[in-house]
Amino acid sequence: MLQFAQFGAGRIGAIHAANLMANGGTSLRYVVDVNAAAARALAGKYGAKVTDTKTALADPTVNAVIIASSTDTHADLAIAAARAGKAIFCEKPIDLSLKRVDACLAAVKKAGVPMFVGFNRRFDPSFAALHARIGKGEIGKVEQVIISSRDPGLPPLAYLAVSGGKFRDMTIHDFDMARWLLGEEPVEVFAFGSCLVDPAVAKAGDIDSSMILMKTKSGKLCHINNSRRAAYGYDQRIEVHGAKGRLMAGNRSPTTVELANSDAVSGDKPLYFFLERYAEAYKAELAAFVAALAKKKPMPVGAADGRQALVLAEAALKSYRTGKPVKLA
Amino acid sequence: MLQFAQFGAGRIGAIHAANLMANGGTSLRYVVDVNAAAARALAGKYGAKVTDTKTALADPTVNAVIIASSTDTHADLAIAAARAGKAIFCEKPIDLSLKRVDACLAAVKKAGVPMFVGFNRRFDPSFAALHARIGKGEIGKVEQVIISSRDPGLPPLAYLAVSGGKFRDMTIHDFDMARWLLGEEPVEVFAFGSCLVDPAVAKAGDIDSSMILMKTKSGKLCHINNSRRAAYGYDQRIEVHGAKGRLMAGNRSPTTVELANSDAVSGDKPLYFFLERYAEAYKAELAAFVAALAKKKPMPVGAADGRQALVLAEAALKSYRTGKPVKLA
Amino acid sequence: MLQFAQFGAGRIGAIHAANLMANGGTSLRYVVDVNAAAARALAGKYGAKVTDTKTALADPTVNAVIIASSTDTHADLAIAAARAGKAIFCEKPIDLSLKRVDACLAAVKKAGVPMFVGFNRRFDPSFAALHARIGKGEIGKVEQVIISSRDPGLPPLAYLAVSGGKFRDMTIHDFDMARWLLGEEPVEVFAFGSCLVDPAVAKAGDIDSSMILMKTKSGKLCHINNSRRAAYGYDQRIEVHGAKGRLMAGNRSPTTVELANSDAVSGDKPLYFFLERYAEAYKAELAAFVAALAKKKPMPVGAADGRQALVLAEAALKSYRTGKPVKLA
Amino acid sequence: MLQFAQFGAGRIGAIHAANLMANGGTSLRYVVDVNAAAARALAGKYGAKVTDTKTALADPTVNAVIIASSTDTHADLAIAAARAGKAIFCEKPIDLSLKRVDACLAAVKKAGVPMFVGFNRRFDPSFAALHARIGKGEIGKVEQVIISSRDPGLPPLAYLAVSGGKFRDMTIHDFDMARWLLGEEPVEVFAFGSCLVDPAVAKAGDIDSSMILMKTKSGKLCHINNSRRAAYGYDQRIEVHGAKGRLMAGNRSPTTVELANSDAVSGDKPLYFFLERYAEAYKAELAAFVAALAKKKPMPVGAADGRQALVLAEAALKSYRTGKPVKLA
Repeated sequence: MLQFAQFGAGRIGAIHAANLMANGGTSLRYVVDVNAAAARALAGKYGAKVTDTKTALADPTVNAVIIASSTDTHADLAIAAARAGKAIFCEKPIDLSLKRVDACLAAVKKAGVPMFVGFNRRFDPSFAALHARIGKGEIGKVEQVIISSRDPGLPPLAYLAVSGGKFRDMTIHDFDMARWLLGEEPVEVFAFGSCLVDPAVAKAGDIDSSMILMKTKSGKLCHINNSRRAAYGYDQRIEVHGAKGRLMAGNRSPTTVELANSDAVSGDKPLYFFLERYAEAYKAELAAFVAALAKKKPMPVGAADGRQALVLAEAALKSYRTGKPVKLA
Repeated sequence: MLQFAQFGAGRIGAIHAANLMANGGTSLRYVVDVNAAAARALAGKYGAKVTDTKTALADPTVNAVIIASSTDTHADLAIAAARAGKAIFCEKPIDLSLKRVDACLAAVKKAGVPMFVGFNRRFDPSFAALHARIGKGEIGKVEQVIISSRDPGLPPLAYLAVSGGKFRDMTIHDFDMARWLLGEEPVEVFAFGSCLVDPAVAKAGDIDSSMILMKTKSGKLCHINNSRRAAYGYDQRIEVHGAKGRLMAGNRSPTTVELANSDAVSGDKPLYFFLERYAEAYKAELAAFVAALAKKKPMPVGAADGRQALVLAEAALKSYRTGKPVKLA
Repeated sequence: MLQFAQFGAGRIGAIHAANLMANGGTSLRYVVDVNAAAARALAGKYGAKVTDTKTALADPTVNAVIIASSTDTHADLAIAAARAGKAIFCEKPIDLSLKRVDACLAAVKKAGVPMFVGFNRRFDPSFAALHARIGKGEIGKVEQVIISSRDPGLPPLAYLAVSGGKFRDMTIHDFDMARWLLGEEPVEVFAFGSCLVDPAVAKAGDIDSSMILMKTKSGKLCHINNSRRAAYGYDQRIEVHGAKGRLMAGNRSPTTVELANSDAVSGDKPLYFFLERYAEAYKAELAAFVAALAKKKPMPVGAADGRQALVLAEAALKSYRTGKPVKLA
Repeated sequence: MLQFAQFGAGRIGAIHAANLMANGGTSLRYVVDVNAAAARALAGKYGAKVTDTKTALADPTVNAVIIASSTDTHADLAIAAARAGKAIFCEKPIDLSLKRVDACLAAVKKAGVPMFVGFNRRFDPSFAALHARIGKGEIGKVEQVIISSRDPGLPPLAYLAVSGGKFRDMTIHDFDMARWLLGEEPVEVFAFGSCLVDPAVAKAGDIDSSMILMKTKSGKLCHINNSRRAAYGYDQRIEVHGAKGRLMAGNRSPTTVELANSDAVSGDKPLYFFLERYAEAYKAELAAFVAALAKKKPMPVGAADGRQALVLAEAALKSYRTGKPVKLA
């Protein structure tokens, strides 16, 4: 039985706790949250104990931590957990600052603990199958990757203010997908950004729409398009072209019902929100973390992946700000 | 908190127990099964107690029973549960004999307990949405219903021998869907049956392929096609035509991945097995039972529905055997 | 160069004439129609001559005739053309009376001329490909055929009055498709008919909705569903199940445009009318006739096919009227 | 009756001539081609006369010319036709040199003759419908355009050598689509190019794969992805995002046949070649030219459109070569 302490009892914390309980072979010992009521509610539901960070990390029966607290606490908690010798499941991003990410990675390396970064999309059944089928050679050598990633609607401006900006907050998922699907690191990034959804975003110094191009050393090409709004819901699609064909993975809809009438033939919109669309992915990523831990195998998504996605986000931001392509070492 | 006793700890019993535990506001007090090991395993998983039928039904803290044991025990258990004043969730069919179904319905009626029959397909998200949209008038008055229902493969011949035959065992689901979607009772049934999949089925006195037509009093038409084998998996589709259009609901596939290569553009096969395809339906039907119980509302699928589907199965069987259409009162 | 005389200069006649002109290796010598203006217009367009039946058939340079006049004239014209030694392309049906069809077949046989019956759907690119792929064994042995065939709207009542009724006029196409796809003659037919679209149809002694079952000697099953109205347009779909899988062919839409908005994801309705849906089929059937003629090969759809479809229509009508299945020799 | 002279009797010339003949109200008077046999064959088919450029343009009964000869002759022929006062239908591109395009435009302007440039994709039924629906406001203000445009296979290297390179030869169509769909001129272009299909292309100084980003003054974004090879055929898709939703138009396949077997559910590949995919578009563009001419209305795609697409191609080429984004006035 692997025993867990969880930091963060909010929306995403509740999902991880539920998946942990349903996973089997795992138990939730502690819940830590600055919001005491939220901590009590979540702990109560699963027979866990509310405590503080120090106590949780000092308990030698705790094998692993789930870090699902606010972004600015991720790195410190990960460093503390690493020093306490706990395995780490950390929500993305590790941090918005590359410097602090590096400090975190150093601590993790020094402690020799496994660290998993929650790029949940790699565990979406469709994206995971697409990736696996590339690996089996179904389309030959990968040549181009096209990622469409659109949120159903703008988050609150207060959230945007602390989000690190669209590239670090939203596109970071797409940068991870791009690296994973290209199978090779991008060496050059070019980005256009616009504010087309709401002028308030521009006032807040951010963008709500963007298109990015990336190129790898061997010449593979990648495109990412983003918008903070899609009238029809959460739009998450991937298209990979190889020498022998094309693999695509698209949206899922709540039902398969199709209506044909005198106007049109119409089906459901895509699932509206990331919690619905990626419900299976959240379950699968925690299971992958637990399985790697139990079998002492390498983490399928590690701290270095968390860092590299941020490097690409920084490059895109720099490209957008300078108007020039950015080369990566 | 509603307290349950469950009869049957096999494959379908395990599903109901898991859904009961995840539902909230419900607890599993007893598990009863002739297979003691299975009973212990399931009870152990959820902190329930293994016991016998008599003890379970005698416990006044038990509010409801789930009958998920073998078909030939359903009616007796339902009668016993009714006499003990317990609410009943009964897997389909109530019984293979109309006479025994009637005895069961009489006991339930006399006891005044609610009884739910597990026609899970009504709770499939797509079929439920299709039905609801008919109700909203999206296609006007229903005129024709077409139900395609195909199993991925033949069940073991030993199972077929006690199944009551294809119409009572397999098509009974489709008869329930037909009644539900037509919104009017069929008054005439005609059936063709064939043995095209495996001659062993014919030797066992059964059929593996059939096509059925039904007509309601007002002239609505319904077609059901069945096969005990579909090379591509579990095929469950519905098509309803009305004055203003057509509603269809189709199969679901494990992923949305699509491959385009020099041969074809190809996607996943449908989900292969009823446990996968109807996982959400099993969850939703138990939730519907619990909600009706908690709110003292009428059961959404009652004992009379279980009876009526059997009446149609008997009519189809008679039509197949006599080669003539069968009129219902 | 094959020289043609065409009887009938109406809507379907115009299509055949245009396809004849575009086909290559063919020319239109005469147009005959009781409507002199229509005859003149069509003949003028293609440099043909307006004449009467006698003259057209007496001209030894005429190799073949296209019979696209009103249904009640088909048989007489075919008999006259056969006696004159002309090859015959005859619009379906040959006649509404089996007796007259037999007289026509006898005359054709005696004259030894080739006769093609215009079951255009066999030449629809999708249906033709589906049939060819059955032939290649892609789904193994055929077990079940399901044909959905729905008109966009009721024809004028005046037309219905002389149409021979829904089975002979509309379903006759589906009977031909059924025979062609089953690869075996149906030996039993059962039909339900209803009047759900317009009570005026019932007053005219006809039906507007029907469902049919057919069975072959080896036990293959077939279902046909029809309606004289589909709010969304012309609905023409085929589904064939075999031991190794399923082949389906569906509707075509004018464009591939798909709109996703806050309501739904919606695409075009199917092509609305038979002239649009089967434009390619009309072209291909005439080309097939010409090719068979030029190469002196057997006609791909012959007079016997025209007869057999009518036999099935008669059986369906008898079943509908008597309420009993009808066995065929 | 509008009388035409056509320059070029090759593959594309044959298509235009056939569409001209079928259009109605038009006749083909002359065919001019350096290949005398090709000219004779085409002229013979439609009763036209083989002649030389001078004679064709000197004939006052000729109203319009179709320029479908080799690319390097387009500009000179257009200038000569303009001077002779003929209306001009010119295959794309006008020329590979912007200077010569400008000379051509000046001559056309001076002569006051209408000139149409054959950007056939605007007349594809799906793309035309998509564009019209943007105009009706179905997705609100356009924000992003994504164009996928992939050839089935590499053209001969000899063709590539005189093609002007991938941007001028292939992407020029996409640049025109982008301008047309954005409804606003791009002011900045960035391009990545790679040679992933065949190293021989790189040796010839060209690329076979590219991704492009463009931005308009108001911040609208556009992405184009290209490859000279797609194993599954000709891939031509468009996706437009607006404030209120998304419009997409995809590929067409030869049939609607779908096979479900134990491997997958699979349908046809897209139509393989541009002549098949855009057959309707070629017909419609010529009809549009003729209609504009007959009604003395402005050309729906004019010489300035031909020029502007080339400007974007030049910008993309410069961006690819310099590695920097290129700003347009």
